[in-house]
Amino acid sequence: MPALAALYEPIAADLEKVCRIFDDELFSELPVVNELCDRVRRYRGKMLRPALLLLSARACGKRTEEHLTLAAVVEMVHMATLVHDDVLDDAEVRRKSPTIKCLEGNEAAVLLGDYLISHAFHLCSSLDSQYAARLIGATTNTICEGELNQVCHRGDDDLTPEQYLAIITRKTAVLTAACCRLGAYFADADEKTVDALERYGLSVGIAFQITDDILDIVGTEERMGKTLGRDLEKHKLTLPVIHCLREATPEINQKLRAHLRSPHPKRELLAGYLRSTDSIGYSLNAARSHVESAIQALQHLPPSEARYSLQHMAKMILEREQ
Amino acid sequence: MPALAALYEPIAADLEKVCRIFDDELFSELPVVNELCDRVRRYRGKMLRPALLLLSARACGKRTEEHLTLAAVVEMVHMATLVHDDVLDDAEVRRKSPTIKCLEGNEAAVLLGDYLISHAFHLCSSLDSQYAARLIGATTNTICEGELNQVCHRGDDDLTPEQYLAIITRKTAVLTAACCRLGAYFADADEKTVDALERYGLSVGIAFQITDDILDIVGTEERMGKTLGRDLEKHKLTLPVIHCLREATPEINQKLRAHLRSPHPKRELLAGYLRSTDSIGYSLNAARSHVESAIQALQHLPPSEARYSLQHMAKMILEREQ
Repeated sequence: MPALAALYEPIAADLEKVCRIFDDELFSELPVVNELCDRVRRYRGKMLRPALLLLSARACGKRTEEHLTLAAVVEMVHMATLVHDDVLDDAEVRRKSPTIKCLEGNEAAVLLGDYLISHAFHLCSSLDSQYAARLIGATTNTICEGELNQVCHRGDDDLTPEQYLAIITRKTAVLTAACCRLGAYFADADEKTVDALERYGLSVGIAFQITDDILDIVGTEERMGKTLGRDLEKHKLTLPVIHCLREATPEINQKLRAHLRSPHPKRELLAGYLRSTDSIGYSLNAARSHVESAIQALQHLPPSEARYSLQHMAKMILEREQ
Repeated sequence: MPALAALYEPIAADLEKVCRIFDDELFSELPVVNELCDRVRRYRGKMLRPALLLLSARACGKRTEEHLTLAAVVEMVHMATLVHDDVLDDAEVRRKSPTIKCLEGNEAAVLLGDYLISHAFHLCSSLDSQYAARLIGATTNTICEGELNQVCHRGDDDLTPEQYLAIITRKTAVLTAACCRLGAYFADADEKTVDALERYGLSVGIAFQITDDILDIVGTEERMGKTLGRDLEKHKLTLPVIHCLREATPEINQKLRAHLRSPHPKRELLAGYLRSTDSIGYSLNAARSHVESAIQALQHLPPSEARYSLQHMAKMILEREQ
């Protein structure tokens, strides 16, 4: 399996330009605002969304200036959701540096997220066409719905796998789908290719969120670089738990429900229940089938370095837990 | 002084259409989202910003479909800032109904504000031109800066009148200025007229915020329909306090500083200090001079029912405290 840096090779120079656009857009005349934004930069992880957008463009044979702008826009949207998630989640550690919330209180976190989302739309409005603004507006609408729906279903032990899938599609996969669609669309790809890349992005996003939720239960904080067990703490049901509640013996089901409702549920105890039904294995299989759909969608494209990268980025999602 | 309803007469039918656009845009397939949005509707106050936009359009002799869309957009932006302000402010009562924050916790308030801002930009992207998206994006950028700057200056007893003016211009007046500019611009007014209406909107916004800050000290909660004394509680310095700190005797200055730093400062005690320097009178005079600038800017326009309304809306700002 090639490393992520090797897969990013076709877009390494592009990503540097995206970082400059990102920084220029966020620059403020007010020093306090710049100080806060410096902290946001540390949130920057693998730049997965800009990479998906740029690789989709390259896989369609064309990378324009608009792609660079849009790559910065989608990263800003993603950062805004991370910063506001910290307000929602009370997370203490994210990407191994103190979260914005810890540093400056809830107020600054809310405002900084707003600053990011506002600049995302402002940057997007610099393009000539409204196509991207419409798609990104529709996407952020859906992300908010997904997050609101998730908050409202917290503590709902009867959440079905279908409801879970609807939530993660909204809160995660629509953005990765939009990234790939924008990459293809602005490369002047034909409609079928644009649709195929959007399907790829959607499947990748779903698979990514399923494994993220698995790792929240069985991952190590050191490797992940963030506080884990938050879903459990917040009584958010994810696929392994949903599966276990449906497949376990009545006795274990009862114990698990009681444990989920306890004030400080323990990851280790949960993992024990999940083993009895092989619910981690079931969830990994679900992720795997979405990865396969993603790779399937890429068959529509001619072979290229960028398509190779997209294929292997999808496969890497399944290696995250090792 | 005519009542607000009479001043809204030229745009009463327009405002009803704006409400429908607003509701249609926020409608979701998810019942939980609609439930939350129903609560937002109760926040709707005087619809000052849509009214400024539509009256500016009418004062320039033309009201298009784009104006209706944009009036809904600016109201959504304003609502989003109110909802997020509640997270920031811990306000208990706003417009005499429980705040979103009280009803559903910080999480839902953050997400609902995000939902509103996302839909504002989404609705804005339905227009053909990027002009409005650019102006509104730049405006929300500035609003966030103003709010961030205000949070960072909390507890700063050396805040100058100039710094205060810069904060309220950013957090309040740029939006009212943008409303008036958009009204004129989309009515195809010439550049000088567009600029004049923008100046009107800026002055009105500044005057409005100064009186709002005065009322936070000397208003009655029953009349205002919201919790007062929040600025004091949060150690946010506003014009009356800034003036008093500069003009008071050293003895009163010292007492006032100590009082501002106390855990539960009292509005009544503060009012006593402010009387010694007539700082409320000074602040009202400052508001009055901005109202005069606003009315001055309107001289550029031909007389009309809409111009009359804009003039008297500016004058009404000074009557708010009575």
